[in-house]
Amino acid sequence: MKELGKLFENTLMDIYYAENQILKALPKLAQKAKSPELKKAFQTHLTQTEGQVKRLDRIFQILGKPPKAVKCEAITGILKECDEVVEDFGDSTALDAGMIAAAQTVEHYEMARYGALRTWAEELGMKDAAKLLEETLLEERGTDQLLTKLAEAKVNLKAA
Amino acid sequence: MKELGKLFENTLMDIYYAENQILKALPKLAQKAKSPELKKAFQTHLTQTEGQVKRLDRIFQILGKPPKAVKCEAITGILKECDEVVEDFGDSTALDAGMIAAAQTVEHYEMARYGALRTWAEELGMKDAAKLLEETLLEERGTDQLLTKLAEAKVNLKAA
Repeated sequence: MKELGKLFENTLMDIYYAENQILKALPKLAQKAKSPELKKAFQTHLTQTEGQVKRLDRIFQILGKPPKAVKCEAITGILKECDEVVEDFGDSTALDAGMIAAAQTVEHYEMARYGALRTWAEELGMKDAAKLLEETLLEERGTDQLLTKLAEAKVNLKAA
Repeated sequence: MKELGKLFENTLMDIYYAENQILKALPKLAQKAKSPELKKAFQTHLTQTEGQVKRLDRIFQILGKPPKAVKCEAITGILKECDEVVEDFGDSTALDAGMIAAAQTVEHYEMARYGALRTWAEELGMKDAAKLLEETLLEERGTDQLLTKLAEAKVNLKAA
């Protein structure tokens, strides 16, 4: 159990880094988005992400440790791809489609991470932490579903 | 539509690179896994991944282009994190838990990518490509669910 605790803590520091990088990336994505709906989705998710960082702060508190970020190679690569799509398609009609898809790779990374963290928190008997992680997991899933809706609405609009 | 076609092709080259990197990573993960069920899950997914690369080859054929891989920064970062967990927890009882979670970040990346590619293939009127992408998407989802089951079975076993 001690070793699972270490894995939990390592992964917490990893997602803490990731969330803080996402906080920096979202205003740029919101600024670049062409459709008002997508712009609004990124802005809403920025507010959500601020809340998610606060939940992580509380989990560090439960652990009795100061919040700490450790460089997360995955989010670094994922956000680099977000930048690439903005660079490559900045003047393209496909920019929003590319940004939605890139943002969904961010959401999916987080869903995988929060799913694992919640399961481990339960196993470690950290009920309050598990509840906080579940709340964030549901928000990430909701954001992913909203992005899918935006992507498909565009498809249906064009097909009509 | 031409620009969406370019986005589709770029993302196809990105996931082609990713799948080929995953093909290289899976035997190592299978070798390191402690539980026979996890070992088998990685081996099964290796066979699946070979089939997924063949589907991508067919989609390049539909596009009338030779298969091409373009470095995918996201999968590079994600697989680096898989390596890290093996290095940091190689001798730990938490190794399998860490490897399951890391593998789920791979699956989630692919689910996001294949979901977007399938939607774009539909929009581009590429019905056969959309069908192939849907087949792979369902396999990735199935693998993710199997990994969740393995993670939770372990939790329930320990809790019993």
